[in-house]
Amino acid sequence: MNKEKKPLILVTNDDGITAPGIKALVEVARTMGEVVIVAPDSPQSGMGHAITVNAPLRLNEGEYFDGLVNYSTSGTPVDCVKIAIDQVMHQRPDLIVSGINHGSNASTNVIYSGTMSAAVEGAVENIPSIGFSLMDHDYDADFEPSKPFVKKIIEQALSNDFPDHTCLNVNIPKASEEQIKGIQVCSQATAFWENGFDKRTDPLGKPYYWLSGYFKNHDGRPNTDLVALENKYVAVVPIHFDMTAYQHMESIKEWKL
Amino acid sequence: MNKEKKPLILVTNDDGITAPGIKALVEVARTMGEVVIVAPDSPQSGMGHAITVNAPLRLNEGEYFDGLVNYSTSGTPVDCVKIAIDQVMHQRPDLIVSGINHGSNASTNVIYSGTMSAAVEGAVENIPSIGFSLMDHDYDADFEPSKPFVKKIIEQALSNDFPDHTCLNVNIPKASEEQIKGIQVCSQATAFWENGFDKRTDPLGKPYYWLSGYFKNHDGRPNTDLVALENKYVAVVPIHFDMTAYQHMESIKEWKL
Repeated sequence: MNKEKKPLILVTNDDGITAPGIKALVEVARTMGEVVIVAPDSPQSGMGHAITVNAPLRLNEGEYFDGLVNYSTSGTPVDCVKIAIDQVMHQRPDLIVSGINHGSNASTNVIYSGTMSAAVEGAVENIPSIGFSLMDHDYDADFEPSKPFVKKIIEQALSNDFPDHTCLNVNIPKASEEQIKGIQVCSQATAFWENGFDKRTDPLGKPYYWLSGYFKNHDGRPNTDLVALENKYVAVVPIHFDMTAYQHMESIKEWKL
Repeated sequence: MNKEKKPLILVTNDDGITAPGIKALVEVARTMGEVVIVAPDSPQSGMGHAITVNAPLRLNEGEYFDGLVNYSTSGTPVDCVKIAIDQVMHQRPDLIVSGINHGSNASTNVIYSGTMSAAVEGAVENIPSIGFSLMDHDYDADFEPSKPFVKKIIEQALSNDFPDHTCLNVNIPKASEEQIKGIQVCSQATAFWENGFDKRTDPLGKPYYWLSGYFKNHDGRPNTDLVALENKYVAVVPIHFDMTAYQHMESIKEWKL
């Protein structure tokens, strides 16, 4: 990277452009580079890697961040990355950061998460990308203790060789800065939502169903993100998008196909 | 599997319950098991692994498939799998099949695809799951040549040990049955959409943006799904959802984190 020029950083999220989490991320990122914000105009939690293919997008110049180029879109987090590069920045950023999400995206949540899907889209584009999440779902979550860790990780991402077609899934414990013990590089834990639906009745007497559930760790390995978080470490998982289960190719080749 | 009892097969898709592709898949699946259909009430292409968390779902008993339990939902393909198991079937199916998608889900499309995300959700639940896609976007695509291959793959999935927490991404060339040379087990090619947005103006004079693009293979390896499809083979890629980039963990551990 050219040391003379400040790095160009795209900031997005899935909680929407007005969420406190993206404000915290912008506050950190703007100390380290030229920041452009393109984020959804409404909450897009759980949108996974959705893209808008059957409808057009709107792109509105925002007034959410003084002195910074900022746009909201009607699209998903992945749409935000695509339209930011093509229609707002007209160039590839040096770094994409997504978040800070209100709530965990550790473990298998990576596949459901809009925050992480924006980072994965950056990896597809071969742009260094990082998704940040704080393990606190509250709208009023305290992002202050996260900031020094976010800063350190962005600094290191900008000053080291970032692996090709990879992004980082960073989850931060809900704790004070002093309680957080450090940063660990981990693997994605194998954990799942145990889901159920609440069946309820609307005022017209018709049923509707609301997804609920809890998250359960099925992974006994010591070096997973869930173990790191439990031990009050910030968990960093390098993520790629080759989903081939290479370990099962030989057994399936033995089927009579 | 108990040979006395017909296997219980859940069928879903992302093109919606009225699409010709799911009709073709049901026609094949019902010859091999007891079939239940739970599919979106409208097209959900490009929905990726989205789930509905901020709104309730509707579940309507359908009249789309004579003599079969069939429901449409207001949710995404992943929602369909979750609500099918919890509220419709009240048990785990022996197999989940998704599709037949109108259009390719080969290579990196797996992360954008609603069809495949339904299959990945099955893998999360540790239920043998297969997503089928025909390389023809047309609503009136001819699914007849696909049927013998779909049947063979379902038969083999039911009669072999299906690997844990895995699903299959099956893509079928647009060709006659005679032109299709066979079935190959492959890895996911590294290929990307080269995206751009069409900027247009609505009748009120305001701009809107429509995603467009073309798909480009960047993978020189011989045994990828894109090569198999080019050579007129049905491509079968085993897919898992551990997205950890294990090959880059050591280099990131050397950062000053």
